[in-house]
Amino acid sequence: MTMKIAVLPGDGIGPEIVAEAVKVLEALDLKLEMETAPVGGAAYEAAGHPLPESTLNLAKSADAILFGAVGDWKYDTLARPLRPEQAILGLRKHLGLFANFRPAICYEQLTHASSLKPELVAGLDILIIRELTGDIYFGQPRGRRTAADGHFPGAEEAFDTMRYSKPEIERIARVAFEAARKRNKKVTSVDKANVLETFQFWKDVVTEVHKDYPDVELQHMYVDNAAMQLVKAPKAFDVIVTGNMFGDILSDEASMLTGSIGMLPSASLNDKKQGLYEPSHGSAPDIAGKGVANPLATILSAAMMLRFSLNQEEAARRIEAAVQQVLAQGLRTPDIYSDGTTKVGTAQMGDAVVKAL
Amino acid sequence: MTMKIAVLPGDGIGPEIVAEAVKVLEALDLKLEMETAPVGGAAYEAAGHPLPESTLNLAKSADAILFGAVGDWKYDTLARPLRPEQAILGLRKHLGLFANFRPAICYEQLTHASSLKPELVAGLDILIIRELTGDIYFGQPRGRRTAADGHFPGAEEAFDTMRYSKPEIERIARVAFEAARKRNKKVTSVDKANVLETFQFWKDVVTEVHKDYPDVELQHMYVDNAAMQLVKAPKAFDVIVTGNMFGDILSDEASMLTGSIGMLPSASLNDKKQGLYEPSHGSAPDIAGKGVANPLATILSAAMMLRFSLNQEEAARRIEAAVQQVLAQGLRTPDIYSDGTTKVGTAQMGDAVVKAL
Ligand SMILES: CC(C)[C@H](C(=O)O)[C@@H](O)C(=O)O
Ligand SMILES: CC(C)[C@H](C(=O)O)[C@@H](O)C(=O)O
Repeated sequence: MTMKIAVLPGDGIGPEIVAEAVKVLEALDLKLEMETAPVGGAAYEAAGHPLPESTLNLAKSADAILFGAVGDWKYDTLARPLRPEQAILGLRKHLGLFANFRPAICYEQLTHASSLKPELVAGLDILIIRELTGDIYFGQPRGRRTAADGHFPGAEEAFDTMRYSKPEIERIARVAFEAARKRNKKVTSVDKANVLETFQFWKDVVTEVHKDYPDVELQHMYVDNAAMQLVKAPKAFDVIVTGNMFGDILSDEASMLTGSIGMLPSASLNDKKQGLYEPSHGSAPDIAGKGVANPLATILSAAMMLRFSLNQEEAARRIEAAVQQVLAQGLRTPDIYSDGTTKVGTAQMGDAVVKAL
Repeated sequence: MTMKIAVLPGDGIGPEIVAEAVKVLEALDLKLEMETAPVGGAAYEAAGHPLPESTLNLAKSADAILFGAVGDWKYDTLARPLRPEQAILGLRKHLGLFANFRPAICYEQLTHASSLKPELVAGLDILIIRELTGDIYFGQPRGRRTAADGHFPGAEEAFDTMRYSKPEIERIARVAFEAARKRNKKVTSVDKANVLETFQFWKDVVTEVHKDYPDVELQHMYVDNAAMQLVKAPKAFDVIVTGNMFGDILSDEASMLTGSIGMLPSASLNDKKQGLYEPSHGSAPDIAGKGVANPLATILSAAMMLRFSLNQEEAARRIEAAVQQVLAQGLRTPDIYSDGTTKVGTAQMGDAVVKAL
């Protein structure tokens, strides 16, 4: 059976890094049908909208989406509904991609690249599971109005609604407990139960779901403390599960701890295991088109795609082993380069992975 | 004229560290009237409420509040309105303490204590200004209900309201620009304008207020990026201004970067320059009563109190110089101890500061 992949390169370095991941996928002996469509700023320029109907329909019809990155300073002045990041929010929403997996792994050969002292990050392997379709990202009502009460009644104000329903919390908690079972059996649920109704409820529901996973250890932590503990002792974590807003902040903090965000993949899944796969880093317009971007995060995202959405565990492992091999060979794009290693460009790195397969 | 200070020691290590700050204040030649009252868990036990009427009235009538810390695991099972942290939220609200100053400073002698590589934090001096009486912390409506729409209509859900009015944003922006004028003239306003109505408004209003401060540089940054840049290159920041929720997370992350959170003071001011002064760290119930807690953050908070609320700049500087001196002498509480320095307890450290005055 042929598996269909929607390839959405996007903006900035997106096209370059996605091209290398496609190269790697094509080198595998699999029946993959890949179809490319514009997204983000590129789609706005081609079709007047960051997520055109045709791109959305392609994504919906595919088994998986390989996504590059979106965004560029030059779109900052567009009205909000037309900005590139609306594409990624739209895909999450329309495909119901509620479970975001963001590993923060420190590769042995790249330990020195971290801002943190080597002993704090050597061997780091955390998995952040972020709820991706709820919370204050999508909660209604939101907008501007005249304040009816508060500190300045009568003044102009803006507002948003944070909300989580019980089934939304239950399903992401299950995803986290299941993931922890395959790892070190520890889940840290991050909340702000001491201040927010939403996250007191979150804590209560996660505690209840935990009853079905007595073999997994559950710890609750406030988000401010989690932001501190990630800096102080990141290796104390195994799986972190949290809401959309806190997850946005903590997953970026955690990936930067590794010092090599150019290496980190991500997956966003719905309940049918359809998924969107993208590097954890952004579109880096400053280095776009120069052939220096690191394609490994995207290549590793393709590996996650094979594992989670296409049921091709062996092919996934082959890619991951090939990435390990090119690192062991000393090949490095500029973002992870250090003395004594060999500096290569985007395409050279992709070619090296293909060769190592 | 006698200045009145409300002394609220609170829970855990609160009483020990506040005692040392009081010792230091008494050693100065100033007309200070200090009155102590229970707060947090201690007040719940003494009077059935974490912020008793009498404590609140004392705080309101004082020129400044010297606050220790609140909280202990043993109060976790109390109903939310009775938990210790409600005291601090109540004081902020009832006294209108909207401007929270949280310096993140890396002391020369303590650079090694940071999780970060020394070159990244040596000389670090950031000031985080967090809005403290608005945002999702206090926004109404909030609670539990049956979801009318969303992913699971009919399900039980919890919700909170994020909101900021124009004058609330204006006044905290002014505080930040004024503070930057006395420092390196750079403000980073942290928002999530790409997703939240509240923070698009925040960004718009801060941009408008900036017109009155053309000598100060203004940069806008998304909160997820800020969480990363703090790890990657913290010294690139001067003043950071943000809302209550993002400020909670980022100020804790930033203070942990220094590696010596036991050294960091904080101030929370209202528009009459009344202020609450407390260490940036918590109540640390695990080491309470052992005489090992670091009193320097509280002593430095007392210095901030003299500067901001009591108009005693010279006395503030004397305290800060004395703290520098005890560090130079090599005195260290266990949290900042390293080989070759002299380990001392809480009271010894306080005595040394008094001697150095
Ligand atoms: C681009 C933006 C809307 C998005 C988010 O906030 O979720 C991004 O930061 C991410 O984490 O994927
Ligand atoms: C105790 C808690 C309510 C409080 C907050 O979230 O503001 C604390 O974390 C702080 O930063 O002072």
